[in-house]
Amino acid sequence: MERVRYGMIGGGKGAFIGGVHRTAAAIAGNWQLVAGAFSSTPDVSRASGLELGIDPARTYGSWREMLAAEAALPAMERIEAVAIVTPNHMHAAPAIAALEAGFDVIIEKPLADTPEAAQAIADAAEQTGRRIAVTHTYTGYPLVKQARRLVTSGKFGKVRRVAVRYMQDWLSRPEDLIENKQAEWRVDPTRSGEAGAFGDIGTHAANLVEFITGERLSAICADLSMLPGRRIDDDGAALFRLSGGGRGTLMASQVCVGDINDLTIDVYCDDAGLHWRQEEPNTLRIGYRDRPTEIWHAGANRAYLAPDVLAIQRTPAGHPEGYLEAFANIYSAFGRAIRGTEDALDEPGFATIADALSGMNFIRASLQSSRAGAVWTDL
Amino acid sequence: MERVRYGMIGGGKGAFIGGVHRTAAAIAGNWQLVAGAFSSTPDVSRASGLELGIDPARTYGSWREMLAAEAALPAMERIEAVAIVTPNHMHAAPAIAALEAGFDVIIEKPLADTPEAAQAIADAAEQTGRRIAVTHTYTGYPLVKQARRLVTSGKFGKVRRVAVRYMQDWLSRPEDLIENKQAEWRVDPTRSGEAGAFGDIGTHAANLVEFITGERLSAICADLSMLPGRRIDDDGAALFRLSGGGRGTLMASQVCVGDINDLTIDVYCDDAGLHWRQEEPNTLRIGYRDRPTEIWHAGANRAYLAPDVLAIQRTPAGHPEGYLEAFANIYSAFGRAIRGTEDALDEPGFATIADALSGMNFIRASLQSSRAGAVWTDL
Amino acid sequence: MERVRYGMIGGGKGAFIGGVHRTAAAIAGNWQLVAGAFSSTPDVSRASGLELGIDPARTYGSWREMLAAEAALPAMERIEAVAIVTPNHMHAAPAIAALEAGFDVIIEKPLADTPEAAQAIADAAEQTGRRIAVTHTYTGYPLVKQARRLVTSGKFGKVRRVAVRYMQDWLSRPEDLIENKQAEWRVDPTRSGEAGAFGDIGTHAANLVEFITGERLSAICADLSMLPGRRIDDDGAALFRLSGGGRGTLMASQVCVGDINDLTIDVYCDDAGLHWRQEEPNTLRIGYRDRPTEIWHAGANRAYLAPDVLAIQRTPAGHPEGYLEAFANIYSAFGRAIRGTEDALDEPGFATIADALSGMNFIRASLQSSRAGAVWTDL
Amino acid sequence: MERVRYGMIGGGKGAFIGGVHRTAAAIAGNWQLVAGAFSSTPDVSRASGLELGIDPARTYGSWREMLAAEAALPAMERIEAVAIVTPNHMHAAPAIAALEAGFDVIIEKPLADTPEAAQAIADAAEQTGRRIAVTHTYTGYPLVKQARRLVTSGKFGKVRRVAVRYMQDWLSRPEDLIENKQAEWRVDPTRSGEAGAFGDIGTHAANLVEFITGERLSAICADLSMLPGRRIDDDGAALFRLSGGGRGTLMASQVCVGDINDLTIDVYCDDAGLHWRQEEPNTLRIGYRDRPTEIWHAGANRAYLAPDVLAIQRTPAGHPEGYLEAFANIYSAFGRAIRGTEDALDEPGFATIADALSGMNFIRASLQSSRAGAVWTDL
Repeated sequence: MERVRYGMIGGGKGAFIGGVHRTAAAIAGNWQLVAGAFSSTPDVSRASGLELGIDPARTYGSWREMLAAEAALPAMERIEAVAIVTPNHMHAAPAIAALEAGFDVIIEKPLADTPEAAQAIADAAEQTGRRIAVTHTYTGYPLVKQARRLVTSGKFGKVRRVAVRYMQDWLSRPEDLIENKQAEWRVDPTRSGEAGAFGDIGTHAANLVEFITGERLSAICADLSMLPGRRIDDDGAALFRLSGGGRGTLMASQVCVGDINDLTIDVYCDDAGLHWRQEEPNTLRIGYRDRPTEIWHAGANRAYLAPDVLAIQRTPAGHPEGYLEAFANIYSAFGRAIRGTEDALDEPGFATIADALSGMNFIRASLQSSRAGAVWTDL
Repeated sequence: MERVRYGMIGGGKGAFIGGVHRTAAAIAGNWQLVAGAFSSTPDVSRASGLELGIDPARTYGSWREMLAAEAALPAMERIEAVAIVTPNHMHAAPAIAALEAGFDVIIEKPLADTPEAAQAIADAAEQTGRRIAVTHTYTGYPLVKQARRLVTSGKFGKVRRVAVRYMQDWLSRPEDLIENKQAEWRVDPTRSGEAGAFGDIGTHAANLVEFITGERLSAICADLSMLPGRRIDDDGAALFRLSGGGRGTLMASQVCVGDINDLTIDVYCDDAGLHWRQEEPNTLRIGYRDRPTEIWHAGANRAYLAPDVLAIQRTPAGHPEGYLEAFANIYSAFGRAIRGTEDALDEPGFATIADALSGMNFIRASLQSSRAGAVWTDL
Repeated sequence: MERVRYGMIGGGKGAFIGGVHRTAAAIAGNWQLVAGAFSSTPDVSRASGLELGIDPARTYGSWREMLAAEAALPAMERIEAVAIVTPNHMHAAPAIAALEAGFDVIIEKPLADTPEAAQAIADAAEQTGRRIAVTHTYTGYPLVKQARRLVTSGKFGKVRRVAVRYMQDWLSRPEDLIENKQAEWRVDPTRSGEAGAFGDIGTHAANLVEFITGERLSAICADLSMLPGRRIDDDGAALFRLSGGGRGTLMASQVCVGDINDLTIDVYCDDAGLHWRQEEPNTLRIGYRDRPTEIWHAGANRAYLAPDVLAIQRTPAGHPEGYLEAFANIYSAFGRAIRGTEDALDEPGFATIADALSGMNFIRASLQSSRAGAVWTDL
Repeated sequence: MERVRYGMIGGGKGAFIGGVHRTAAAIAGNWQLVAGAFSSTPDVSRASGLELGIDPARTYGSWREMLAAEAALPAMERIEAVAIVTPNHMHAAPAIAALEAGFDVIIEKPLADTPEAAQAIADAAEQTGRRIAVTHTYTGYPLVKQARRLVTSGKFGKVRRVAVRYMQDWLSRPEDLIENKQAEWRVDPTRSGEAGAFGDIGTHAANLVEFITGERLSAICADLSMLPGRRIDDDGAALFRLSGGGRGTLMASQVCVGDINDLTIDVYCDDAGLHWRQEEPNTLRIGYRDRPTEIWHAGANRAYLAPDVLAIQRTPAGHPEGYLEAFANIYSAFGRAIRGTEDALDEPGFATIADALSGMNFIRASLQSSRAGAVWTDL
């Protein structure tokens, strides 16, 4: 299968997530980086392209330039898709332009900085008929997909309660906002959007809940806070309801000291409780009422896993796959969708525009609820 | 030191917690069971006393009988304290009578079935000047006490966030209420009190928060629920505020399948996060921002533990102590208080009437909040 | 059931294991300490007895005195059994005298300091027909018994390989032998016996292997060592063979820094691997080839456990039992054997003289093998 | 930096380790696959090349053909290195030919099927002056490197004892040798070499010991076995000595049911014990005598890690890296060595020919020792 040629917007030197996208695409194996507008500073973009071994003729000084130049190339040569890895407030313009220029788009979450911007992207996708994938990485983990298979099959009954937490500590100190390229835009409402931790990682947590349960959050009662002197939330907790009637709690914090990137989820169904932790992603714990707890292991050779879970793993059990492989699974699935080689009966394998809009909705309702003093707010 | 002579009210054959109290007292070593009114059915009481090797003359058919008869014995012979292990709605009457008869009282939590009954006990203690200990077992664990030492010392800064969960599954099935002596009274509001899971185990969770942080819960926003057909909550979650300004979440459930007796607490301070789990009580995990995570080990020979934590342990590290030893620590401390041999500078080592009233307050506020649709309610 | 009246030999102030025996007997509930020769120094013995609430008339200055005086008391009053908790070289004389005086004996492991002394005890038991229990504590853990049930049932096939480790660090420093009452006699060959770590804790490891597999060690190839300046082994490893044909490794060390009391065992059968760790004794992990790993939980209400495993537990699952409860299970079983109330179809529930002689044999063969330069030696 | 152009020998459709090498090289980012002789069956080679997007002109029917054709290409176009991923008995011939043709070589472990073949490769490397890297994957894990830094620095004193285990279960059943492409050659002495499990994974374990301690195994006493009907060992254990005087145990098995790819190592020094487990590679546990146990976390932003450990990580802590990233670190380091851009003060970052010869030596001595009945044998 011919690899999907793509150009990257953002992700120049010093950026974090751009490199992750490129490595993920390399692991996926069905993508080829051939162009890029890596920075809004043309020199940085050029230097980045050089380091990445991109043809200098296809390293552009701006994304507008890239979209125009690439669209003018012969069909067999020009990029087919763009990867957008810029800060949140710079998602919508290039995404819409790319869609309108006929390119498929893979885009970092959250979809945009505001609900309006997100909706504009969705509208553009609708009108152009192009594909969009949003990189909710954690749904790319094999055992997360297995948990979804188990829960949505109904074999354990209905979902009663969900507890999800996404805890970090990298903003735990007042001084963490100074001279920190990662922090800088993330805590600036004009660039990150109105939500801080709830937007940056709360959306991952909410997405994970929706992915595993196959339901949507229907209402939320949120209590956000921030360290003195900050402008957007860096910590919060919420009660929520699921569309199927279950209840849940969600915590998202960037100031909980000692928790590094601690995303965990517990899903309690009528007859079993499922537990997964991102920092040790290759096991899934399932507790029962009357029999021993089970530890399910990831691995391309664990026959008890679902066929589509087996298919996305690269190594036999005991050879741990991690964050980059999970990310690669998103790229791989989107690449197959673009090539039309995905199993028609299967689900996308990446977060769709509908999932991403739900995430935007989660942000809006959380902020609204919290500002009203933790009042139940519908999503 | 002469052992404290005590009589037990409740705890006859088939009861669970009475046996735990007796074993705890035996491990503590400073208590001696010499009398009992083990059941409201005189025959059961007598049979129980026989099995326990109690002098038949001091095995009584009712607690009223016991209090009267024992009070009439010579001072050096009669009981000095009573242990009350009856269902919640039968706490107040014997407790008050015992206090008034001049006996100290150790009593199972929650203090009573209603705030009014609890207050009546408190008033009786106040008026008689007798001592009361409430068996909030989990504060008897050495590493819980160590966590309290660390957090309240202020060395880690202020408490930012607390997450506490107490999850069980023994009521997860509709049929669990039938033919289950434990469940029977616990889910009957006329005997257990108006709260179910929040009263039975939520109070433990709340007490643990207050013990470790040295603060009180000041407000709560609770969302309780129950399986169809039940009369009191068997599951719930809440947001809360601490008197020191920190925030928290609390979950208590008896219907979360696969969680056996899963009480866990995370306390995040400005400079460290402390984590303890009751099912593996001999380690305390402390996470930091800039250095490796630490695992503290329980054990009478771990010199890095506080002196009073070292003092309550029976075995060197690596010889696990468990639930019964934690319970024994409560008895041991109350016994020393009765004998006046506790360190004057030290804190009680057991939950006091003030702690227990705070627990009753927690129940009241949680129910109130939940009935109003999860509205913030002051404690 | 009338409690078994016992007298203790050793275990005065400052000793460790004597207090453990007493607490274990108290938890067991079917024992009553009524006499003692707690120290070879009469004053220490008397002071210890006083502290323990023993009738001063039955606190003796020597074990000879105790055996004589108690034997002269009326049958319904005198002790029925003695607990021997002295250093290894002082096991044989009181044990034999006690047996000959008509008392049953419960004795700390290893049975004696030399194979000859051990055999003499065995002979005395044989001739007098009295009972002996040796306190190999770790076989008192419920899940160890469950592992034995599973492995010896043959449902997992034959035992292929066993890996057992018992690692401590309390002698890791040269200076650990100075002013350490625990260490003092344990590292003195004239009091502890010729073996150090292999005698003190290696015997526990070997006993655990034999208990779980239901087989005996048949040959060993051992490599013992010690820190410079020491007289007996403080560290060692061995290859071994089981009577059923399986192979194994055994490590025992008191100088492996950071390992506190780390006894772990892995038993690999044809169709499953079982894993247990003493420091977290309430779970048993079982790995399979084709299905998820299982975590079995201890607890009096886990119906999947064997009936005799359920019977020895005091609390429902999730209320951790530990070292003292395991020890209590040994006492409880020996007490029932003395009373003749144990299930006739069941096994003893404590290490017998045969088990203890096997342990002595293990020590002898290990030393012999190691001295010859790690040569295979039959047991 | 220009990427290193390489050709692969072996690794066609159906092979496992070839794909791992290619993904590792892609993650490393400084390698480019441009040619291949993927199978000894020309059609398979061609189909594999097509699938991998290799120029059909550079997909060869045999490695001889590839070496000849590539050597004839212009310097700026031809391959610079070959990756050899064939079964063990097919390592030496292509490796020597490649070296002689002027190419650097990266080769799967063990270096060869026999000590003679291994020596021949070493001689060829010596004579040609070309570079060789052997892919002992596990030394590519960041925390393994960190353990090496800590242990070899001497800050914890000398190495006392090492325990290493590499346990698998994929050959646990007699029928596992039938229709299993992975098993087929690995258990055939004419293709795999005389050693089975000890050669295939025991060498990894031995290499890990040598890497972390900075010492060599100096003597071994090994006891190998195999299931009935097999021709080479599938299970074994050994005692060993280190060149610095420490002692150790090594287990390697492919028939221990439930252990998937369970490589663990414990290194006990005078003042600390270090513990690492491959299946959860992102934590390193360090135990001390007098202070809490530490958990060190992997991550590009954990400032307490050594600079060269930080340098090889792609993601901040809490974003787990796994087996493929560890493998990529080997490729990355070898690529930098080829480009001459590695830090001159640093060590290679990959297993050298000396390390690999030590591994061959380990195999020889283990077999010799075991055949003699577990006799100490010098390496």
